[in-house]
Amino acid sequence: MKSDLDALMQARNFDAMIVLGNAEHNPPMYYLTGGGHINKAVLIKKRGGDPVFFCNAMEREEAEKSGLKVIPVRTGAMEELAKRPRELLTEYGLTSGRVGMFGHTDLAMAFHIVEKIKAEVPELELVGENQDDSIFMYAMESKDAKEVDRIRKVGDLTVEVVGRVRDYLVNCAVRDDETLLKEDGSPLSVGDVHSLIRLWVSELGGELPSGFIFAIGHDAGVPHSAGNPADLMRLGQTIVFDIYPAEAGGGYYYDFTRTWSLGYATPESQKLFDEVREVYEKVVENIDMNAAFKEYQKLTCDEFGKNGHKHQMNTEGVLTEGYVHSLGHGIGLNIHERPWSRHNMSDDNRLKPGTVFTIEPGLYYPGKGMGVRIEDSYWMRPDGSVEKLAEFPYDFVLPMKKWKKK
Amino acid sequence: MKSDLDALMQARNFDAMIVLGNAEHNPPMYYLTGGGHINKAVLIKKRGGDPVFFCNAMEREEAEKSGLKVIPVRTGAMEELAKRPRELLTEYGLTSGRVGMFGHTDLAMAFHIVEKIKAEVPELELVGENQDDSIFMYAMESKDAKEVDRIRKVGDLTVEVVGRVRDYLVNCAVRDDETLLKEDGSPLSVGDVHSLIRLWVSELGGELPSGFIFAIGHDAGVPHSAGNPADLMRLGQTIVFDIYPAEAGGGYYYDFTRTWSLGYATPESQKLFDEVREVYEKVVENIDMNAAFKEYQKLTCDEFGKNGHKHQMNTEGVLTEGYVHSLGHGIGLNIHERPWSRHNMSDDNRLKPGTVFTIEPGLYYPGKGMGVRIEDSYWMRPDGSVEKLAEFPYDFVLPMKKWKKK
Repeated sequence: MKSDLDALMQARNFDAMIVLGNAEHNPPMYYLTGGGHINKAVLIKKRGGDPVFFCNAMEREEAEKSGLKVIPVRTGAMEELAKRPRELLTEYGLTSGRVGMFGHTDLAMAFHIVEKIKAEVPELELVGENQDDSIFMYAMESKDAKEVDRIRKVGDLTVEVVGRVRDYLVNCAVRDDETLLKEDGSPLSVGDVHSLIRLWVSELGGELPSGFIFAIGHDAGVPHSAGNPADLMRLGQTIVFDIYPAEAGGGYYYDFTRTWSLGYATPESQKLFDEVREVYEKVVENIDMNAAFKEYQKLTCDEFGKNGHKHQMNTEGVLTEGYVHSLGHGIGLNIHERPWSRHNMSDDNRLKPGTVFTIEPGLYYPGKGMGVRIEDSYWMRPDGSVEKLAEFPYDFVLPMKKWKKK
Repeated sequence: MKSDLDALMQARNFDAMIVLGNAEHNPPMYYLTGGGHINKAVLIKKRGGDPVFFCNAMEREEAEKSGLKVIPVRTGAMEELAKRPRELLTEYGLTSGRVGMFGHTDLAMAFHIVEKIKAEVPELELVGENQDDSIFMYAMESKDAKEVDRIRKVGDLTVEVVGRVRDYLVNCAVRDDETLLKEDGSPLSVGDVHSLIRLWVSELGGELPSGFIFAIGHDAGVPHSAGNPADLMRLGQTIVFDIYPAEAGGGYYYDFTRTWSLGYATPESQKLFDEVREVYEKVVENIDMNAAFKEYQKLTCDEFGKNGHKHQMNTEGVLTEGYVHSLGHGIGLNIHERPWSRHNMSDDNRLKPGTVFTIEPGLYYPGKGMGVRIEDSYWMRPDGSVEKLAEFPYDFVLPMKKWKKK
């Protein structure tokens, strides 16, 4: 929770924090300000004190919507901080101590600002933190009911889009070579489907700030391939559809994946799907409040390992087939945030009350042209029950309305 | 041009550069890699050498589309660099020298990486640069014909969307109190128009990574106000519509503004519009190849000053009315880049061949509930002629098809 930040600053020995960058698409700044059309801003907060928000005078009214104390400056606030660091920092009473640097912005400029601060206010020690367990990652980890409501709304949007894509695909005509056809009779490409996904997300008021994955065949076997726009949509191939929209303006994310095979499935891909589905169900049935997330990663590795798949715990080096990633991650203003599930993560990555996290086992065989992943986002409710934040069927084979297997 | 980077590195005494972050929505990384679905990557380039691109093994195939040498690592490349900086940097032969840090990414993590590098490879000096005149800003300043083609295509999309918005508005019914009505008879809000803009940009394949401005009345008088979604659309008020879409995935931007008044204009706002239009024409008629951009800012300040408006050259401190900003800026992978036009900018901000820049004078009186800005994006062609990259009429008053002034 945001209210944990002061205690976290104390535990990490931060006397203050400086947050740089735009208010949108910048999780720490968004978290403290609520977003808005405010560019290259500077937020300074001492431990136990209220934040002060420096912004370009042209953006003062947007900035005031944050409810924070706003100090307008003549040009960009980051530029002003580089030009007269001593003046701005003493105005806020920050002249010594250990200061954490946060925000998502231009590095060259951030380093430039730090060099200027060091020259003019050498009593300040400016430090970074590993992003994956920064104080923001800890504070953001527990969501309140309002945050969960926002995530749930993005989940509603997500499954609406996924349903439209499914309905569109199953209603396509199919050529003799098993390629799907558009209404005008030309073949349907992965790029065409990408366009529809972008359009529908936007129509429903969402954004895709981190992209999305809709990939078929070989590309479905490469977990982070976005899909090749030139590929044609065909029957009987695995399609991995991993979609993670956010609220417009860089707000809260949802994260969701289904794997489909149009018309029919090959026995090999059906087997792969069944294995993933089985492990997915096993994990979800066993989720306990406050359990270490990595225990479920270990369970998943064990189960896949029994079936002969490589995974992060039985294989050294770079993995390109089998179960090549981790089970899940927290979601919020970051598409990936605490808690983490990798088997070697610290014990405090637990499914605490208020966490919102994904469960997403998968198996990948790019050489065989196939991959499978199933993913939903869950909320650990304060009462210890687990809520799936959006419902959608798990069907693997989607029957085509205008095609029958011969 | 990209080919200028080595000479720029030499002039600034950089032995190497390290670029951090995603390949998309990260101008330096996009410039060197061409974008794609590659997260938390690390690119290292020595002066005179080819870049090496470290990425998560799951994203290797996307990364290989860059044509660069790709080194896949087991987890995130930024994480690996923090964990074993000496190993990764010596693998590429970077163990001493002055290194520029670039990219748009998480600051806490970037500072954390730098602390780790300093501890393990103390012979490296890691430095920042003022973003506004970094080596990337200089390299990116001159565009080749391919880059201009991409910007022109975004311009086509932009004016298509603006035309649709205009056509939508002028076809609305109007209530007795001069509020526009939707088809269902309910009042049309600024938020409704925002939704249409987002939808149409997306439908045409663009993105709005930096948002956009569609603001009426008071908010039109605050140059960077995005517009209040709850405001109702009314006749006779100034509407500032500033839209800057980019290619999907964080590519090239376009930048464009028109000011409208629906049905009729008040004499006061018509006068304000005419003043801006006149100065706009005067500037555009006088653009010369290689001229210092700030000369046109001075011209604009002079002209507006003659009519009694405040501007950056006749007023100290924070400006909230009059001509409160600068005349324009370069556009490319950054929504704002070199050349800069502020009156106190360095002389080398010139309209050189290959620059793509905006011309956008404006006048703002939020207290009177009005503001006006006109903006187009121009290319200084290698032959010294100036090309407006997208055409759209300048009409201020848009006659309403279903309404007549009584």
